Amino acid sequence: MNQKGSLIILSGFSGAGKGTVVKKLVKDYGYLISVSATTRKPREGEVDGVSYFFKTVDEFEHLIEEDGFIEYAQYVGNYYGTPKKYVEDQLEAGKNVILEIEVQGALNVKKQYPDALMIFITAPSVEELKARLEGRGTESQEVIEERMKRASEEVEEMTQYEYIVVNDIVEQCAADINSIVIAKHCELNQKLDFIEETRKGFANI
Amino acid sequence: MNQKGSLIILSGFSGAGKGTVVKKLVKDYGYLISVSATTRKPREGEVDGVSYFFKTVDEFEHLIEEDGFIEYAQYVGNYYGTPKKYVEDQLEAGKNVILEIEVQGALNVKKQYPDALMIFITAPSVEELKARLEGRGTESQEVIEERMKRASEEVEEMTQYEYIVVNDIVEQCAADINSIVIAKHCELNQKLDFIEETRKGFANI
Repeated sequence: MNQKGSLIILSGFSGAGKGTVVKKLVKDYGYLISVSATTRKPREGEVDGVSYFFKTVDEFEHLIEEDGFIEYAQYVGNYYGTPKKYVEDQLEAGKNVILEIEVQGALNVKKQYPDALMIFITAPSVEELKARLEGRGTESQEVIEERMKRASEEVEEMTQYEYIVVNDIVEQCAADINSIVIAKHCELNQKLDFIEETRKGFANI
Repeated sequence: MNQKGSLIILSGFSGAGKGTVVKKLVKDYGYLISVSATTRKPREGEVDGVSYFFKTVDEFEHLIEEDGFIEYAQYVGNYYGTPKKYVEDQLEAGKNVILEIEVQGALNVKKQYPDALMIFITAPSVEELKARLEGRGTESQEVIEERMKRASEEVEEMTQYEYIVVNDIVEQCAADINSIVIAKHCELNQKLDFIEETRKGFANI
């Protein structure tokens, strides 16, 4: 069976360890991170097609007209977007593709891709979340408090997601997400062709 | 988090290898098979509470009156049933409990336990199913044909299930079922208490 990949919409609290979980999914499970397109200039070391797809404003706007983006936005004078073709080619090739976005983008993507999995990653507790933000040691107290405030608002967005995955141990969290993807592949509505084949198989025997 | 177990309703074609998959789930994943109650006499080697819960007709009928069964039926003059208390105690203790039943019983159980997972196990193809039935070498051609006929009817019942799991390699099939159970535990409606706790956590910080 040549199975299509799953589109995984991933959101989560800042400090929940989303980045580490994504790295684990890429390294241990062969997942792909969706590569964004942008009109901003490449920084040193950034590789076209890996870090970003670098586009001119003309190219980007042409793609917008052609409905070439799953979602896009303007930020500090530059365009950023998720190219439809890249994601769909990868899904067609059977790759599971991760899209790291916030709730509004997530809901937009879900409308276009009803089979996409909306997953929210959280720390085991609020205390742990705060401890992780503080533990990074790179953020000022002010930034930490701002992130905690943002997180306390995001709680209200959690109920928009289909799955809540607790990131206690990163290996476990990545395995849980992979289980969600496997379960999705076993859902009845993914197996209708298979059932039809089976039905024909019995008719021919 | 003290997590409740999942109730797994398992059906599948005769010859799909359901028995082997169940054994794997018990041995490698610690799942429990629901123990039935019956009024038939114990056979040699059968142990009360392991093979069956052996009951007198009076005891059984008393349990029926008390709504003590998830489902029950009469067969060749004896009662057979799934005791509610046993299953619920195990789920409460966090055990995943397997219930091997046919479609009508499955739908009845699902009505009582909406969180139960309805899983149908199938062979990779009709040819493979037939080959497995023939390969057993224990069944007459007549029995094999009867089973294939029954299976061809069961195809129409497959769409009543939530998940279709293909048993190509038994280890993979058991792992897929375990993934479905893990994914269920991550579903939003299983995490509402956790979200409420998180909300309170932010209020208290």
